[in-house]
Amino acid sequence: MSPFRASPGFTEKWEHFGFDVTDGVATVTLNRPEKLNALTFDVYADLRDLLAELPHRGDARVLVLRGEGRGFCSGGDVEEIIGELQRMEPAQLLEFTRMTGAVVKALRECPLPVIAAINGIAAGAGSVIALASDFRLMARSASFAFLFTKVGLAGADMGSAYLLPRLVGLGRATELLILGDKVDADRADRIGLATQVVDDEDLAATATALARRLADGPALAYSTTKVLLTRELDMDLGSAIELEAITQALLMKSADHAEFYAAWSAGRRPVWTGR
Amino acid sequence: MSPFRASPGFTEKWEHFGFDVTDGVATVTLNRPEKLNALTFDVYADLRDLLAELPHRGDARVLVLRGEGRGFCSGGDVEEIIGELQRMEPAQLLEFTRMTGAVVKALRECPLPVIAAINGIAAGAGSVIALASDFRLMARSASFAFLFTKVGLAGADMGSAYLLPRLVGLGRATELLILGDKVDADRADRIGLATQVVDDEDLAATATALARRLADGPALAYSTTKVLLTRELDMDLGSAIELEAITQALLMKSADHAEFYAAWSAGRRPVWTGR
Amino acid sequence: MSPFRASPGFTEKWEHFGFDVTDGVATVTLNRPEKLNALTFDVYADLRDLLAELPHRGDARVLVLRGEGRGFCSGGDVEEIIGELQRMEPAQLLEFTRMTGAVVKALRECPLPVIAAINGIAAGAGSVIALASDFRLMARSASFAFLFTKVGLAGADMGSAYLLPRLVGLGRATELLILGDKVDADRADRIGLATQVVDDEDLAATATALARRLADGPALAYSTTKVLLTRELDMDLGSAIELEAITQALLMKSADHAEFYAAWSAGRRPVWTGR
Repeated sequence: MSPFRASPGFTEKWEHFGFDVTDGVATVTLNRPEKLNALTFDVYADLRDLLAELPHRGDARVLVLRGEGRGFCSGGDVEEIIGELQRMEPAQLLEFTRMTGAVVKALRECPLPVIAAINGIAAGAGSVIALASDFRLMARSASFAFLFTKVGLAGADMGSAYLLPRLVGLGRATELLILGDKVDADRADRIGLATQVVDDEDLAATATALARRLADGPALAYSTTKVLLTRELDMDLGSAIELEAITQALLMKSADHAEFYAAWSAGRRPVWTGR
Repeated sequence: MSPFRASPGFTEKWEHFGFDVTDGVATVTLNRPEKLNALTFDVYADLRDLLAELPHRGDARVLVLRGEGRGFCSGGDVEEIIGELQRMEPAQLLEFTRMTGAVVKALRECPLPVIAAINGIAAGAGSVIALASDFRLMARSASFAFLFTKVGLAGADMGSAYLLPRLVGLGRATELLILGDKVDADRADRIGLATQVVDDEDLAATATALARRLADGPALAYSTTKVLLTRELDMDLGSAIELEAITQALLMKSADHAEFYAAWSAGRRPVWTGR
Repeated sequence: MSPFRASPGFTEKWEHFGFDVTDGVATVTLNRPEKLNALTFDVYADLRDLLAELPHRGDARVLVLRGEGRGFCSGGDVEEIIGELQRMEPAQLLEFTRMTGAVVKALRECPLPVIAAINGIAAGAGSVIALASDFRLMARSASFAFLFTKVGLAGADMGSAYLLPRLVGLGRATELLILGDKVDADRADRIGLATQVVDDEDLAATATALARRLADGPALAYSTTKVLLTRELDMDLGSAIELEAITQALLMKSADHAEFYAAWSAGRRPVWTGR
C-alpha cells in the first residue's frame, strides 16, 4: 500500500465489473456479456474511481482490461445511457461527459501500464477506453468502431480526437472519427492502432503473458516510461529532454538499475524488485 | 444562410475556378487544365475568400476540391507566380506567402469537411492544399510531390512542415519535404497520406458518394469532429478532454442525437437534419 | 567559416571518433568496433561539442553518422558508463543525463541535415542518436533496440519518449520503449522508423549518394526545412503558418531561388550555391 494514504479506505467491492488482483496483475472484466458489455453510468463511475485508487493499493503493477463473452465493450448502453441523456439538462449532461472523459484521463495518467485484451467489438466509448490503454492486443476477429457520429454525436468523445491522431496520424483519424466505420484487426495492425493481433484462441494467453512480463519486470522503469510518454505529448523538445534527464538520474539511483549492473557483473540474470 | 451575417453580400461569381453548390455539396474545380491547374495569384485570393464565405452561405455541408483534365494542381505557376516574385520586395513577398498560408489555415479551420479528389499530380502548393483537406481520395495514377526545394525554396510552405509530420510521422515528412520527390498513390496509401486509392475511372463517383454521405448525414456531428481534430492538435490532454466534454454535452441537445434515439426506439433509420 | 565567430577557435582533433569533412560532407565514424561502438563519457562530450561547432565551420552542408565494423552503436558502455554511474551522486548523474540529452537536442537543432547510416545494431543511446537524425538508412540486417528498461532504466531517455511517438505513433512507441525489444529493418521500414532499407553491401554507397545530393543541392532550402520541421512540432497551426510565410519570403530573396528561375527560363539545369 502507498505510504501516502491517510483517511480513505479502499473500496471493498466493485459491483459493476469483475475485479481481481493476483500476483501483481489487476484485471477488470466488463461483465454484461448479453449486452456486449455495454457501459452504464455505474460502470463509468466505478472505472473512474478504481483508476484513482489502484495506484495507491500497492499490490498491482499492471492492469488488464477485458470483456466477458463475445465482445470487448460496445460503448454506452443505448437504453440505459442514451435514453436517460434525452431527459437531462445541460449541467447534468456535462457532469456525464466529464465523467467519461475522466476515465480516459485516468487511464493515460495511471502510472501502471494498461493492457486492453480486445476479444471482439470495441465500439464507441469502448473503442476510446481501448485507445487510452497502453497495449492493445486484438483477437483476429475483433474490431474497432469509433461510431459516435452514427448516433448523431461528435466523433470527438472522451479525448478520441486528441489520442487517435497521435496513434495513427491526422488523416486516418479524420476518416475513422468522422465516418465511424468498422476497423478490422488487420487494418488496426497496419495503421498502428493494434499493438499485436493474435488468433482468437490465443488472446487470453497472450494478455496473461504480457501482464506477467510487466508485473515481474523492472516496474518503476516501465511506469516512468508510460508516464513520460503521456506527458511528453504535451511538451516541447527542450522541456522533454530536461524531464527525461532528471527522471533518468533518479532511476540511476533505483534498486533495479543497481541490480542490473550487479547481475551483469556476476554473469547472472537480474532479479527485478520494481523499485 | 447564417443568421450572423450583416452588411457584406456573397460573391456572385468566382472567376478563377469553377464553383457550384448542389444539394449541400459545394465543388471547386481548378480549371486551367492546359497548365495542370497551376495556381495564379488570383486563384489563391479567391480560394482564401471563398473559404471565408462558404460556411456563412448555409447551403453547403461539404466541400469537394477537384482538378479539370489530367492533374489535380501542379502548384504555383512558374511564369505567373515565380516570375513575378523575382521582382517583388520583402513586404510584397510576405503578403504573398501570408495569402497562401491563409488558404491552408482556412481549409483546416473551415467547419465543413473538405474532400480532395486527386486525379493526377498534386505538386507544390497543390500538394499542400490536398494535405490540408480532410479526405484525400487518390486515383491510382495520381501522385504527390512536395517539390519546394526543387525550386530553391523551403520544404516548409503553407504549413506543410506542421501538417505532414502529423499525418505520416516526422521521419517520412522529413524525407518528403527535404527531398521533394514524387510519392505515388500506393505509397501515399501505405503511409497514411491518402485516405483511399481507387481506380482512375472510379475517382469521380467515389468523391460524389462520399460527399453525398457527408451532406446527407449528421452534419453538425461531422463538423464538430473536424473542428476539434484541428484544434486538439494544439491542445494538451486535459484541455482536449474538457473541450470534448463540453462539445459533446452540447451535441446531446442536438436534433440529430434526439433523432437517433427516436429512430432506434422505433426500429427505423434516422433521418438526419444536420442540426 | 561563419562570419559570426569571434574568440573561440575550432577543435583541431576529435579524439573519440573519426571525423572528416570532404566536399561539404562531414562524417563522424564511431570507432570502437570491438565494443560495437559503445559510447563512453568522452564520446558523448565530443558529439555535443562537435555539433555546436559544426554549423559555424562553414565547410559542411550535411553530416553523416556511421559506425565502424559490425554495428552502428550499442549504446552506453556497460563497464565504462553504467559501472561509473553506480558510484555517482545525484548532481553528477544529472550532469551526465543532461549531457546525453544535449547531444539529441543538438542533433535536432543542427541546421545541417543529418544522415545515420545504420549498418548493424543501434541500441540504447545508439538508437536515440539514430532517431534524432533526419534520415535513417538501414542495412537489411541492421536493427533498433530501445533497450533502456532492460537495464532497469526508463525507456524515456535522451528525448526518446518525445521523438518516437512523433515518428511511429504513440501506440508503437509505447510498445518499443516499455518492452525494449529488437526492431528489425523490415519493421522499422513499415512503421516509419527507417527512411530506407537497402542491402547490406549497398549501405555505404546509398549514404554517400544521399550526402552528395544534399551537399550539392540548395542547402539553404534543405536547412530551413529541417529547422522548421524541428520547431513546428512544438508550435500551433497559426504560428507555424506564420513562421513558414516569413521564412519562405526570405528564401524568395535567396540566390538559389533566383537561380531556379533563371535556369528554368533558359531551359537549363540550375546550379545551386546553397545561398
